[in-house]
This record gives sequence, structure tokens and C-alpha cells, in this order.
Amino acid sequence: MKSNILKIFFVANLILCLNLQAQFGSRKEVKIPDILGMKTLKCDFHMHTIFSDGNVWPTIRPEEAWREGLDVIAITDHIEYQPHKNDVPTNHNRAYELAKNKAEELGLTIIKGSEITRSMPPGHMNAIFINDASKLDTENWKDAVLEAKNQGAFVFWNHPGWRGQQKDGIARWYDEHTYLFENEIAFGIEVVNEDEFYPEVLQWCIDKNLTMLSNSDVHHPTNIVYDVTSGEHRPMTLVFAPDNSYESIKDALINHRTVCYTKDLLIGNEEYLTEIFSNSIEIFNDDFEISGKDGKNIQIKNNSDIPYKMKLISKPDNLEVAEQFTCYANRTVLLYVKNVDEEIVGQKDYELKYYVENLITSPGKAAEAVINVKINHSSSQK
Amino acid sequence: MKSNILKIFFVANLILCLNLQAQFGSRKEVKIPDILGMKTLKCDFHMHTIFSDGNVWPTIRPEEAWREGLDVIAITDHIEYQPHKNDVPTNHNRAYELAKNKAEELGLTIIKGSEITRSMPPGHMNAIFINDASKLDTENWKDAVLEAKNQGAFVFWNHPGWRGQQKDGIARWYDEHTYLFENEIAFGIEVVNEDEFYPEVLQWCIDKNLTMLSNSDVHHPTNIVYDVTSGEHRPMTLVFAPDNSYESIKDALINHRTVCYTKDLLIGNEEYLTEIFSNSIEIFNDDFEISGKDGKNIQIKNNSDIPYKMKLISKPDNLEVAEQFTCYANRTVLLYVKNVDEEIVGQKDYELKYYVENLITSPGKAAEAVINVKINHSSSQK
Amino acid sequence: MKSNILKIFFVANLILCLNLQAQFGSRKEVKIPDILGMKTLKCDFHMHTIFSDGNVWPTIRPEEAWREGLDVIAITDHIEYQPHKNDVPTNHNRAYELAKNKAEELGLTIIKGSEITRSMPPGHMNAIFINDASKLDTENWKDAVLEAKNQGAFVFWNHPGWRGQQKDGIARWYDEHTYLFENEIAFGIEVVNEDEFYPEVLQWCIDKNLTMLSNSDVHHPTNIVYDVTSGEHRPMTLVFAPDNSYESIKDALINHRTVCYTKDLLIGNEEYLTEIFSNSIEIFNDDFEISGKDGKNIQIKNNSDIPYKMKLISKPDNLEVAEQFTCYANRTVLLYVKNVDEEIVGQKDYELKYYVENLITSPGKAAEAVINVKINHSSSQK
Amino acid sequence: MKSNILKIFFVANLILCLNLQAQFGSRKEVKIPDILGMKTLKCDFHMHTIFSDGNVWPTIRPEEAWREGLDVIAITDHIEYQPHKNDVPTNHNRAYELAKNKAEELGLTIIKGSEITRSMPPGHMNAIFINDASKLDTENWKDAVLEAKNQGAFVFWNHPGWRGQQKDGIARWYDEHTYLFENEIAFGIEVVNEDEFYPEVLQWCIDKNLTMLSNSDVHHPTNIVYDVTSGEHRPMTLVFAPDNSYESIKDALINHRTVCYTKDLLIGNEEYLTEIFSNSIEIFNDDFEISGKDGKNIQIKNNSDIPYKMKLISKPDNLEVAEQFTCYANRTVLLYVKNVDEEIVGQKDYELKYYVENLITSPGKAAEAVINVKINHSSSQK
Repeated sequence: MKSNILKIFFVANLILCLNLQAQFGSRKEVKIPDILGMKTLKCDFHMHTIFSDGNVWPTIRPEEAWREGLDVIAITDHIEYQPHKNDVPTNHNRAYELAKNKAEELGLTIIKGSEITRSMPPGHMNAIFINDASKLDTENWKDAVLEAKNQGAFVFWNHPGWRGQQKDGIARWYDEHTYLFENEIAFGIEVVNEDEFYPEVLQWCIDKNLTMLSNSDVHHPTNIVYDVTSGEHRPMTLVFAPDNSYESIKDALINHRTVCYTKDLLIGNEEYLTEIFSNSIEIFNDDFEISGKDGKNIQIKNNSDIPYKMKLISKPDNLEVAEQFTCYANRTVLLYVKNVDEEIVGQKDYELKYYVENLITSPGKAAEAVINVKINHSSSQK
Repeated sequence: MKSNILKIFFVANLILCLNLQAQFGSRKEVKIPDILGMKTLKCDFHMHTIFSDGNVWPTIRPEEAWREGLDVIAITDHIEYQPHKNDVPTNHNRAYELAKNKAEELGLTIIKGSEITRSMPPGHMNAIFINDASKLDTENWKDAVLEAKNQGAFVFWNHPGWRGQQKDGIARWYDEHTYLFENEIAFGIEVVNEDEFYPEVLQWCIDKNLTMLSNSDVHHPTNIVYDVTSGEHRPMTLVFAPDNSYESIKDALINHRTVCYTKDLLIGNEEYLTEIFSNSIEIFNDDFEISGKDGKNIQIKNNSDIPYKMKLISKPDNLEVAEQFTCYANRTVLLYVKNVDEEIVGQKDYELKYYVENLITSPGKAAEAVINVKINHSSSQK
Repeated sequence: MKSNILKIFFVANLILCLNLQAQFGSRKEVKIPDILGMKTLKCDFHMHTIFSDGNVWPTIRPEEAWREGLDVIAITDHIEYQPHKNDVPTNHNRAYELAKNKAEELGLTIIKGSEITRSMPPGHMNAIFINDASKLDTENWKDAVLEAKNQGAFVFWNHPGWRGQQKDGIARWYDEHTYLFENEIAFGIEVVNEDEFYPEVLQWCIDKNLTMLSNSDVHHPTNIVYDVTSGEHRPMTLVFAPDNSYESIKDALINHRTVCYTKDLLIGNEEYLTEIFSNSIEIFNDDFEISGKDGKNIQIKNNSDIPYKMKLISKPDNLEVAEQFTCYANRTVLLYVKNVDEEIVGQKDYELKYYVENLITSPGKAAEAVINVKINHSSSQK
Repeated sequence: MKSNILKIFFVANLILCLNLQAQFGSRKEVKIPDILGMKTLKCDFHMHTIFSDGNVWPTIRPEEAWREGLDVIAITDHIEYQPHKNDVPTNHNRAYELAKNKAEELGLTIIKGSEITRSMPPGHMNAIFINDASKLDTENWKDAVLEAKNQGAFVFWNHPGWRGQQKDGIARWYDEHTYLFENEIAFGIEVVNEDEFYPEVLQWCIDKNLTMLSNSDVHHPTNIVYDVTSGEHRPMTLVFAPDNSYESIKDALINHRTVCYTKDLLIGNEEYLTEIFSNSIEIFNDDFEISGKDGKNIQIKNNSDIPYKMKLISKPDNLEVAEQFTCYANRTVLLYVKNVDEEIVGQKDYELKYYVENLITSPGKAAEAVINVKINHSSSQK
């Protein structure tokens, strides 16, 4: 049977080629659209290697990041916490040096960073865009952050509600933080760290106009912690910048052009969230003709990896629509719109208002989205 | 136990929302790019319902098709084979009538069809774009196909190598088929039916300039047969047409603007296959600078659902590249290009030629693809 | 390369054999252990076909059930609701006749049934173990249920909180139900139907000593509704019986030996739930030696398909353990038990008490489980 | 927005609980049955860490192994190849020391090992069950293996066909290997290493009575290399031993009680393979009654993780059965057995002989399996 021979031919080839690609693997993009004429860079600014308390060799970090669809990473090993130092003598600049070539081979941007690791207050802080991490190894934490500022670093406060430093898991603001932010030493805070989300920190960022960050703080191989095959992803900071150069990223960070992405949640400024939503969604058949008490399916296509969870806010009295539905990621769903008022005749524009419940703009508040419907009512004769 | 009550409540909430979407489900597009300024319509022109020997009510067919990303379907119940007729009295037009509304609700094109079901020769033939299926219920098969032609049908020969009619699974051409094609009664043949691919039929289509079709011939619910969740798909005929109107689809079918899609294989005219390939693929970093015996990763992004299996045909002597690799579906992979001749200086353009092994242009022959590389060689000082 | 040739050989074989098995498919058992010396039969006593308002031919029901690991099914087409009757003339006994052979080929028990379909009260009722469904086609619903009783049927009340008959989704008890249960015409109620769970009905079953049922009421192909590949399952009634004969199943149903299984929930009598839990779980290293303030991992292996969600009720003061954890289905997890009292010396038995939150014994109440730990404290010298 | 607050709360609850298990993860057993009154230990005797050229900290190896269902591991960092030594000063015993506690916490057996790393011949060799790896750091390779023997090690030859040392990928036997095996310094060879299978080495093991091994030789985090979530697994050596003590494992290794497990292949002694097969499989309905030209489904349940690929060798003339089928892993499949001789009357025993194609006993040869069928033929009257 000829067709069988053909088939055999292909499979044999496949086996060889898998061999050749074992070293490569493949990259799966994170599908979140670009907005406002800028790129939506997928970034993780907090991770560890064996050069502090992490469990992987530094080159693994860019490899993982490439596979998982990230664009920008910073390795931020602890300055003060060096549990492996008997086996791996302290060298604060080494993880970056080792990872840099691998990142370049893979087309990723890697930023030099370190974690200044102090008890609370001020707690842990990441300094990224530094030149020489060894100079941050100072007695006094203020000297460390000032040196970082001096090197042109972007400094942010890590996991303010971490139970290792706040037993109740609630973030607290100390004078030290006032010092850091008022003197423009630090500019941002982690609203999300690993699997923790601190709503109180989100409120601080809104009130004090600080940059929100969402990072993995990963110590293990990432795909032990996140089941990437099943669609899980590490927390990421989305950065809106014209390109992935150091300058553009730093500028975006200083100017708060970020959104936190963790699990199915996007957390941040409403403008960014609604832009992401509207650039993710295509709506079909929202301009239709019906007669009398009749309805029609609107098709809503979601081109992103984020399942948008819709909850009705308001609708015209004469229309019936679903109170709740989910625009599944990378899928099209139907929204059935039914007219229940027989008397209407002529063309009319309607507005359906929904919360997008997983787009968080402030603690307990979700972004809103409008679905516009245009109906051409003809009189029904039935 | 407060948290339990909470969860139950939460679950209740969730249940309601699932309730609303249970009837909907969701649609997953088949990602194969449009080409040549036309749409790439995903079509299945052969399926059954309980109105012949199938096992589903007709409305299920458009529902399945919508979920699976199809654009166009034809239900083609057997005229002569009516095993359920004691329970479901014969009505050749009924399946279409029942399915039509559902298809329209879902935005699908549904074409009226029937399967003229005779022993070999001429075997089974589908007539689609008919007006009245009951008129195909004739004593003599020639009367049936002439009636179909009279109704403006597009007629094609089904599964010519089916073991139910050819014990060895090999298709044979009979005088009856010469009659059908020479008199422009039939225009196409199934090169793929269900899980069968007939290479000899592919050759006939090339030699005689006939339209190639690939259909599911499904009798069961489709996702019993194809594990859609795991990424399996039914066989489809890709039709290249300006839109999904009856006229456009029929015109495309008559003019052979089709490609067969089954498993990971695309089978058809080389022009269509290479257009699909080149519209699926984005290549990054193919214009680079190196010095001496050095190399670089080219990133190849595949935006389609088809994993392209590459096998090297030819390359310049001074470059080393992978003999084989796969551009995984919806992924980016790396192709490492290494220069091994130290003497080259200055800018040079190179051509890497690969077979794309799962793009079948004729029995045993695959489409070819070229990857262009531009290298700026600077002299190395190491 | 020899090894390659070997590999090719196998793959070719595989392709052929998939062809041969397409008609078969395969069965995946539902892993819930047998208890109390009886079999745990997986049953679905409520489903439809094209002979009422369902969308599949009757033979599909046993095929699906076999694949999904069920042991017992009843097809229960509506007596009074026959929306397809213009195409499929009414024949109340026919779906069973058609499905019976297929069920026997597959080793399934199929029970003859019908759905008596009336407005509320009394609403819809299933009669299973009947002889002649056509005799249930009576003017008065009392005549129908009495005829069912006369035929030796087990009658149960379907989906009492269905929004089609109770706008607020809350089940209500009417005099008609008192009549049905006091006269031993009906013996059970659906606590779960499709994706609905009625806690108020669970309470009725407890208070009035009625049989709890959980059924799919499926109208579509099941794996359109439940993503079986991803591990979803239809609602099932677990029936505890010595074997799968009609007599044994009926006896179990009359004597309330059932548990409702839907999503990750088991709902029913505490004795059955804790037996299922304890027969699912194996505990390793719960008898160990430590010295001073030290701890150890207990390994908990779950051999069932149900992920048990544990929430701490009580523990000895000197031990620290997780407040919450999940015994994932078909996995082993660790429970770290730490002693925090340095003074203890000698062997001691401890009891850790947990709720198993997804084992529901009554509205808002979960089954309890005890993990016994035996520690041999030796004095620590550190 | 009440429901949102609820959800956030619920999610918070969930997060806590995941927190507690993030450090744990879960273990998925490898389902291959125990045989011959012994345990089937799942072992990997070859892996690397940052203490040679690997990319993970040593504690990661037992963590991965526990999750993936292994029972026994050996970390075998290179003695002579120390590419990280500028950052991680050479310490041949350190990886074992660091991994040992973690292995014990998780209930795994970890064996101290090293890879003696020389050019071919003799190539690379693993010595496991050693006391002091630093003493293997000798000028002459013979001194190293003699020291290993002196320490009571089990020594085996690694990846004899590795393209790094044999350009054509074909293993060659040198005098050095005769020396190693004749002097009972080495006892085994890797028939499988990473994604390579060397059939010629399988033949050597048969001819010379050597122990066959199958190991991962993993350098990266394992679940970057193997998509564990999708069911992929690393190569393992199955060791048949009464328990998982050092003595029992060493005894089993010396006495060739091993089988190689890679992809879907088991490679080794026919007795072991057929025992594994027959302990994996349960057959139902193989004792049945039919009359005349009729058939019946035999149900074949496979309780193991290995999909057995069956190919018919011989059958009685009067029976028709599938030429090929697969007993899918953890599934039940049907084998339809049809009698085609009307004349047979009375009870008869039949034997169906199949190759189990993925149970490899020697190059190109598969294990055989017999399915016994007992039919009670009654005379048919149709």
C-alpha cells in the first residue's frame, strides 16, 4: 500500500529531527496585544540562580524565558544572602555574565540586577540596570541603594507582604519607604510576587503614583513551579515601550507604563487594561436585522491568552443578554442578544456594559467594557 | 465551616455562568493563512446524519463544525442506503432543512447535498449545491447524476480506494468515471476520506486536472472520532475563494482551487502549498553579522496550526545548518547557521533549500522552501 | 543506522492499527474504589436520544458510556414530549431495543426506562426497570406512575429545582410528591442533574430517607458537553451492589445505597463517603522517629480519580501541620508533620482531624477524616 | 460588585493552599507492575549537576525524581570534566552530600556515584556504590576503575554509541572493554542513553551476559527535556529486587535483573518482559458461548503506563481477529473474535499468538504473548 510507505517515510524523518531539536526546544509567545503604538514587552525582573539561593545555573534562566515567551529578564541574586557560598564563592556579577551570552543567542534582553536583602524595614529591594553589583555589598542599606541610584538603577521594593517578613501577610509602609520614594531612589513596588497578590500595595501605587511590578522570584526551574504545558505561566510585568532597548524599558518603568499579569488577572491602570481588552477582541454580527421578539448571536473572538470574564452592568430594557460569560482565550464565543419589545421599528444603537472581572483596576474594582449593538428592527408579521 | 459555604456559593455562581455557555461552547479557528488575496475556507463536504446511516440529529453537524473552526459544510446522506427507514421514514431533503437554521445562527455556510450510493463502478458520488435531493432517487445512476448536473450540482467521486468496494484498498478507474468526467458531470475526487489517503488518486487529479477533496465522511459525533481537545482534526478541504457565498465556493471547486488537509499533511498544487507555508512563517535575524568561524540563531516563527517538517536539499559549502528540523505549530524554533570558512569577508547572500516534507505535491514528492540568509562577514582576529 | 530502522518498523505498524481501532476506541475506568464488600457501580439513569428530544441515535449512548467508564445506563426518552415526531414517529420502546445489543456487546448493563414529563407538580419523573414504555403514555400522570409501579419500576423525581419549572432554581415539595413517596410509588430524587446541584433536595433525602441520584440528562453527544479528554466527567450515581444484575441494582436503589458524583464532589451518606475516602488513600511513613523540634514528611497516596481537599479541624498542640492541602487524584503528596515541643520523650500516638471539603454529607457539611501519626520521640542533644 | 469580592476571597484561599503545596508538588507513580515476587524499582543511574557540567543544584535531582515516580537515583558528575570549576571549585563528593538529605526526606534511595570520563576507548564509565569519589581522580583510567572496584562499586560503560566519541553513532568493542568485563571490574552497559538506543549493545549484553542499563544522562532540569505533563518520561532502568536497599539493588544489578525502559519500549530478557506484560493485562469475556458464524468482544484491560502494540503471529483457521491493535495504557480495548466455521459444536480452547512489538528481546525481535479463548459452540439454527 503506497500511502503507507509514504507515511513511514515521514515518521522516520521526524525521529531524527527531534534529536536535533532537543537542544533547541521551542518558544511559545504570550499572546497579549501591543497597545497605544507601543510593544507589550513580557518581562520578569526577579529571579535567582545558584549564585545566591536559587537552584539553577544562570544560563537556564534565559533558556526558560525564551521558551515561555518572555522578552526581557533580570537575574537578581541576593547580595547579602549567600547560602551556597561554601561551594560557590561569592561573585555578585557572575550570574549576569554567564547568562548574557545565552540571552543574546536567543534574542532576549537581559538586564543586570541584584537583590538588596535586608530585614523589614526596608525589606528586600531589587536594583536593575546596575553596572557593578559588587559595589552594592555595603554595611548600611542606604549606602547600597544610593550606590544603585548612582549607577543609574531602577530600584523597586520586593514582596512587601511576604510572610517571611510580615507574619499576617499584610504589607506595611515604613518611614524607610517614604525615604526611598521621596528621594527618588526607588520607583516601583511588587504588587505581585510569585503566587502572592497584595491589594493594599496596588492601592499605594495608585495613591502615590508608583510603578507596579509582577515578578516570579523563581528559585527552582520554572516549569517545576508552573505547569507550562498545561497553560500555566509565571507572573510577568507587562512593559509598554517602543522597543526592547535598555533605554526604552527603563523609561517605561520610570513612567509607570506597566501592568501586572498573574494567573488570569491583569492588574493596573484602567487605560492600559481596556486597551489590551479591546485589542484582544473582535466582534462579529453586532450590526443585524431582526423583526419583533427575536434574537441573534453576536460572535466574540478573543485573540489573546487571557480568558475575559464578563459580568453585566447595564443593558437596554428591551434586550435580553447573558448576565455572565467568558470570552475564552484564543476562542470565539456567542453572545445571544434577544429583543423582547415587539413595538420597536427602525434602526437603533444599543450599549451593553460589562465588567471584565479579571481586569483589576483597584482593590475590588474591575475594568468596564462596552459592546455596541446596532439593530435594524423591522415590523414582524407573525 | 465558613470557607466551605463560600466555596459552594462560588461554585454555584460558576455553575450558572457555565450554564449560560453550555449551549454555546466555543469555536477554535483552524489557523491556516489566507493566500493569493482569497480566503482559505475550511470545508467538509461529506457527512451523515440519522437520515441515512449516521448517528446524530442534523443540527449537531453545524454545531460541531462551528466549534471545530470550519466555515462550510455539506450534509450528504445516502440516497439509496436508508438503514434507519423503519424508524425514520425516508426524506432526502430533511437533514438539510433541519441543519440550515442552526448553521445560519452560527454564521456557517451549509450546502445542500446527497450521496448517490452505488456499487463500484461508479461507486459513491456526492452531489452538492442541489435543490431537491428527492429527484436523485432514481433507478439508474446515470439518471441521478444527470439530474444533479441539471440542478447545477458540483459532483465528486467519494473514497475511490475504500476497502468496502476495493478489497486491496487501491483505487481503480473505470469507464464509468471516464463518462462522468468527460461529460463534465463530475469535477472532483476525494484524495482523502476519513483516515484514508489515496496517492494514486492524487496522481489522477494532477494528470486529468480534477479537483482534489478531503472530507470526513463522519457518521458518529465528530469528537468521538477525533480527539479535538488534544489537537486532532477531521479531514478538511481548503477552498480558496473571495468569500463564503455559494457562488464563490462553487467557482473555486470547479476551478480546482482546493488543498486537502488531513492530520499534519497538506496535499495539493505546489503554488497553493508554498503560499500557505510562506504566509505561515516569519523569519527573524536572517540578516546578521559574524566574524570568522562563528554562527547565529535564526528564529523561525510558525503562526499556523501545521507543524512544518523541514529536510535539507542544498546549502552553500561554507555554512552548516540542521539537516532536519520541525517548525512546530504556533511556536518559534531556532535554526543555527554556522559559517565554517574563515576566509570570507564582506556581505553575502545565501540560500538554504529545504523540502517541507508534509506538503505533498504529488505521490512521494514534497514542496520546497527557501530560507534566505544575509551575512556580513567581518575578519576575525582570534 | 539500525536503531532507526527498528523505530520505523514500529511506527508503520501503529498507523495500521489505529485504523483498526477507530471503530473501537477505548474505555477509561472511573477510579472510585469498591466499598463494604460491594462493587461501586458507575451509573447514569437519565439520558435522551432522537426518540424524544435528544440528538443522537440510541446506539451512541452505550458506546459513550463504555468509553467513559460507566457500568450501567438507562435511556429515558420523554413519553409526552416528542418534538421529532414528524420525522421519527413515536415509539416509546424503540430506543431501548436499538441500544440493547450494543450495550451487551460492550458488557454494559442497560435498563429500560422512560421519562414521564408533566408540568410542576409533580414535574418530570423517570421510571426505570419497566417492561413496556408505551403503557406509560396515559392522560393522567397518576395512571402513568401506577402503571410503572405495576411493572416493577423504580421511579424517581427529576431535577426538582430546574429553572424550566422553578424560576428561582429552588426545589419545592408539593402534595403530589407526598402522594408519590408515601405510597411507595417513587423512591428517589435527583440531587444532581446535569450541572445543577440542589442542596435543599439533599436535605429532603436525609430527612425523608429517600434515594439520592445524580444523572447527566444528556441530550447532545456527551463529549461535546463534557471535555472527557481533559478529565471532565458527566454526573453519575454511584450504586453499591454485589454485582451489576438488574436485581442487585434495583435492590441497591430501593435501599438508598447510592452516592452522587459530580465534578469533584461526592454527595451522600457519611459512611459511604468515608469508606470511599479511606479505600482511596494509602499513607506511608506515619510511624516515625524524630528527636526534639524536628519534622518528617508523611506520604499520602490517592489511588482514586477524586482530588480530596483537606482542611484542618484539630491537631495536638505540639504538632504543626498544613491547614489545607489537596490529595491530588492519582498522585502522592507530602504532609510535613513537625514537632515543636522539645520536652516530649517516648512513643506517642497522635490524631490529625481534617474535613474532606468535597465530600458533602449535608448542605454546608463535609465528611471528616483522621490521619493517625505515631512518633517515637528520642531526646535531642543539639 | 459582590461576586468579584467573593471570588477574590476565594482565590486568596486557594492561593494559600497552593502556597503550602508549592514546595511539595506531587508524585505520579510509574505504573509498571512488580514481577516474580520482587519489586520493579524505577531507577536512573546517570545524571549531572552544577558540580560538573550539569545545570541544576544537586537537591533538584531527588525532587524531580520523586515527582516523576522514580525510586532510586545516582548523581554521577564527571570526575575529569569540570567546566564550572572557576565558579564552583572541584569537590567530587559534594553533589551526593547535598542531595542525600532531600532524597531521604522524600523516601528515595540515592546512590553515590561518579562518571569516569575518558576518550574512547574506554570512553565514559559510571561507578556507583562508591565511598569516596575523590579517589577516582587519577591519572590513569585503570587506576580509577580499580579504585572503584576496591570501593565495592558497580561499574558500567556509558553511551557506547555516542556521536561525541563515535562519529557514525555505532558502538565498537575495544580491548579495553574486554579487560573491564573479563576482570569483573565492569558489569553493565547502557543500551539506552538519553534519546539513543544502541541495538548492537543489546546484542553484546545477550551474548556476553552483561547487565543492560537505560539512563537519562540529564544535564538540564528534567522537565525541560521531557514534557512530563504530556506523559513523556526520562529513560529508566527497571531493577527487580526484593526491596530498595543498597544491597538488594547492587545484587540485582550484578545478577542482570534489569530491563531498559525508554519511550514506549521495554528492552531486555524475554522472561521479564512477558512477566511485565502478563501482570499488566486483565482479560475479560475470553470464555464465551456463540452459535454458528458469530463473534464476541473480548475486553483487554491494561493497568500499566505502557501501550502494548500487538501484531498477530498465528490463530486457528476458524477464527477471525484483528491483525494489529494497541492495548492503550491505562485503558480497556476490545478484541473482536469471530468464528467463521459453522460446523463446530461443543467447547473448544483456542490460542491467539501475538507479538508485543514494543517489548524488544533482541535487535529486531519482539516478545510474544498468547491470548487464550474458550468458546462454547452451540449449533446455530438461523
